[in-house]
Amino acid sequence: MKLDQITAGVLEAIDGQGFVQKGAYNLRQNGQALCHGDSENIRIVRKEDKPGIDIFISGQTKGESVHIPVVVSASGMTDVVYNDFYIEDGADVLIVAGCGIHNDGDQESRHDGIHAFHVGSHANVKYEERHYGEGDGTGGRVLNPVTKIYVEEDSVFTLDTTQIKGVDSTVRETHVEMGEGSKLYVLEKLMTHGNQQAVSNMDIQLNGQESSAQIISRSVAKGTSTQVFHPKAIGNALCHAHVQCDSIIMDEAKISSIPEINANHVDAQIIHEAAIGRINSDQLIKLRTFGMTEEEAEAVIIEDFLK
Amino acid sequence: MKLDQITAGVLEAIDGQGFVQKGAYNLRQNGQALCHGDSENIRIVRKEDKPGIDIFISGQTKGESVHIPVVVSASGMTDVVYNDFYIEDGADVLIVAGCGIHNDGDQESRHDGIHAFHVGSHANVKYEERHYGEGDGTGGRVLNPVTKIYVEEDSVFTLDTTQIKGVDSTVRETHVEMGEGSKLYVLEKLMTHGNQQAVSNMDIQLNGQESSAQIISRSVAKGTSTQVFHPKAIGNALCHAHVQCDSIIMDEAKISSIPEINANHVDAQIIHEAAIGRINSDQLIKLRTFGMTEEEAEAVIIEDFLK
Repeated sequence: MKLDQITAGVLEAIDGQGFVQKGAYNLRQNGQALCHGDSENIRIVRKEDKPGIDIFISGQTKGESVHIPVVVSASGMTDVVYNDFYIEDGADVLIVAGCGIHNDGDQESRHDGIHAFHVGSHANVKYEERHYGEGDGTGGRVLNPVTKIYVEEDSVFTLDTTQIKGVDSTVRETHVEMGEGSKLYVLEKLMTHGNQQAVSNMDIQLNGQESSAQIISRSVAKGTSTQVFHPKAIGNALCHAHVQCDSIIMDEAKISSIPEINANHVDAQIIHEAAIGRINSDQLIKLRTFGMTEEEAEAVIIEDFLK
Repeated sequence: MKLDQITAGVLEAIDGQGFVQKGAYNLRQNGQALCHGDSENIRIVRKEDKPGIDIFISGQTKGESVHIPVVVSASGMTDVVYNDFYIEDGADVLIVAGCGIHNDGDQESRHDGIHAFHVGSHANVKYEERHYGEGDGTGGRVLNPVTKIYVEEDSVFTLDTTQIKGVDSTVRETHVEMGEGSKLYVLEKLMTHGNQQAVSNMDIQLNGQESSAQIISRSVAKGTSTQVFHPKAIGNALCHAHVQCDSIIMDEAKISSIPEINANHVDAQIIHEAAIGRINSDQLIKLRTFGMTEEEAEAVIIEDFLK
């Protein structure tokens, strides 16, 4: 079907792979499924009891992707959606999600995406999620994602999440439970500006022997925006976890980083590093000698930092 | 005056510099000042309104030390003491404190030392504190120190604190407010064994321009003991802070490290690093090839780690 210009524009921002109405996909717009498709290995079923979909990914899936973007363009709308992924043993899949809010009105527009990933053994799942806001209205653009990830034996889960810009308020909740030999990679990138507020809570339970987690969080706070990070890694078995949070603070912004590492087992090895500081002045000077203005140089450094 | 054998033994453990009844000193035993002395530059005055002393350190003090150890040897005693230090501009002083509990009984013995340091400008203060418990009784040995440090312009404050062993329960509260150009060095060393519990909360407010703080915390948890660390560095101005927590976990112990770094100013630069892991096995193997037993090798590594 033909998409309107606003929806097409928002999709371009939130789907880094390029959204097309082919293979397995589901486009949600203003609280409704606008169009959807299945593939041989990936089946999408609308929930009967609440808004949202169940996504069944067979063990035969190899290198396939499924796209489930959400667009909210109606001012004053609150859209809550529950998406559950059932990923069979041995599947290899890329899941591209994301939400963009276009708000031209004076009322708050909000999307709460509650995602659960039930991952079998020996699977490889990459989940890409982008959040974005735009529009000339005074109404707030609010995104409160909840992400629950249950990873069984020897599976690999990669969570690649980006808050691009334009999101006035976000509270992110991420909960992960890891089985034996499983691996988790998290890359969180977040930018706030104006008087935006962002909170990100992460709770990583390393329950299985030889499980490992690497969490990298990078953020930039501009204007009078505030950011609070609370990543928590809990080692309940022989396991490794490495949490690294780096933030650039600008203008009148405020950033709090409150990581928590808990070792409940003698063979749990957990490391955390966090740094908050202003933009690197050597890099700034170097770029300015190339003829860039201060603003241009800052933009380049920030883009590179969040890449 | 002549000290009894238990008091002399405890003093040897808690006063690393060697306690002598000379210069400025105050020995508190079982809730009473046992003996005390002033020096030309350091005056100790007993408080009238509550238990404890005021210690006045003149700006003329250069390289002098004051010793104020506390010994609790009566089982079932709760000793709460308020000590306030008034340190004049330009003073250079070493303050040696510490508390040892000898408990042969079946009742809990407890000491809460509430210390406040009012430090003028251009002063250099080193505060050494050792905590220690011993005795054959079943009664608990409890130490809950509260340390408040107010540092003015260009002063340097070093807090060197050690929980040696034998302390069944401790809740440590440390609060620091830092003026312009002031420097703080914290070295915290803590060992727990058996089913001991330790909590350490630290709150470092970097309020002055060019203030800086370096916090190093090292701990070893053995047996079924638990440790919780919550160091918090708050940058409210152009400042630097570096927080580093390293812990060795053994046996069935549990360790939580929950640092918090807050940047409330664009020129606040704050770094945190934390690591929890088991004893280095390469070091263990090397020491065992020298003929040490596993226990001996562990003891050497731990001693070195906490030095």
